[in-house]
Amino acid sequence: MAYSKVYLAGPDVFLPDSIEIGQRKKQLCAAYGFQGLYPFDNEISPGSTDGAIDRLIYRANVAMIQEADFGIVNLTPFRGPSADVGTVFEMGMLVGQGKPVFGYTNDPADMLSRLRRIAPVTFDRASGVWHDASGMVIENLGNADNLMITSALLEGGQPIVQHNARPEERFHDLAGFEQCLRIAAQVLAGREALRA
Amino acid sequence: MAYSKVYLAGPDVFLPDSIEIGQRKKQLCAAYGFQGLYPFDNEISPGSTDGAIDRLIYRANVAMIQEADFGIVNLTPFRGPSADVGTVFEMGMLVGQGKPVFGYTNDPADMLSRLRRIAPVTFDRASGVWHDASGMVIENLGNADNLMITSALLEGGQPIVQHNARPEERFHDLAGFEQCLRIAAQVLAGREALRA
Repeated sequence: MAYSKVYLAGPDVFLPDSIEIGQRKKQLCAAYGFQGLYPFDNEISPGSTDGAIDRLIYRANVAMIQEADFGIVNLTPFRGPSADVGTVFEMGMLVGQGKPVFGYTNDPADMLSRLRRIAPVTFDRASGVWHDASGMVIENLGNADNLMITSALLEGGQPIVQHNARPEERFHDLAGFEQCLRIAAQVLAGREALRA
Repeated sequence: MAYSKVYLAGPDVFLPDSIEIGQRKKQLCAAYGFQGLYPFDNEISPGSTDGAIDRLIYRANVAMIQEADFGIVNLTPFRGPSADVGTVFEMGMLVGQGKPVFGYTNDPADMLSRLRRIAPVTFDRASGVWHDASGMVIENLGNADNLMITSALLEGGQPIVQHNARPEERFHDLAGFEQCLRIAAQVLAGREALRA
């Protein structure tokens, strides 16, 4: 089996220019010999409050995930210190199905730093544990996000790509994405060679 | 096959009293004839900055997910308008493996309302689309969270349980959790009867 089709998960679908960013991503995929599957066409139904549209989009995205040979996920923080939950759900599906996943974030800060930016954090000397502003424990392991996310990538053999994008370019800078493509091309070619 | 073991995903593991809440959840599971698998024992390593501990926790949690027959996920908003990403990753794995998942949130508000609480949102009349404070498009479908999450539950046959917990009880109120157990007991008994 050749690794050809790559599912492109990310909060990119929520950008006002999501179509353009999807086209740029698919062009980059093609340059590395892959076919990018970008969920945008299914994702947004402006102004609709029809209860059925969301399930149709879900089914279309899941069908794309089934069709994909692997995934590249944009884990840039979205509406908080962590990645977009829609992206993370899709990443979980890919990993659960045993498909290779490569990921990047355009904010290289770790979880403690990300939370500090939002609100004061506190250190409890007795237990040696950091707490966020609501008293919840902070995973202080130096990771860019929740350990289930960063470790899933590590277990797959490649750590999360941490790219320091300029804040105003956080959702348009594709250097981290292209780095994932470079890694994927190398890693997956190696796997194919082993199978051949 | 009998549905017996249930994986208990949620931000509960970040509570200072996470052990106690896990015990309460496992007791409730037992009352409904299920065995609760609670990831806490693997989740927290206070003060550790050892790069290996996260991968050991990841593997232990994934092993629990593999062992589980189904899942109950706590989708209460965590550090933002959406569910905890660790929980959502695990939910994606369960769904990707075809296991039934039931979910609840202790904040019944929809995404537009949740985002409004955090920062001003704007409505673009020309396109009929809502935007958050950073200009990203808001899925205004009346759902409690990203459509991949709510639709995954609907496709499984049961909508997300939306419980209006008091704010100070948001991470300790187990009424929504118990409602999931009630639904799971009924739905899964029905499936077993069909198979028998």
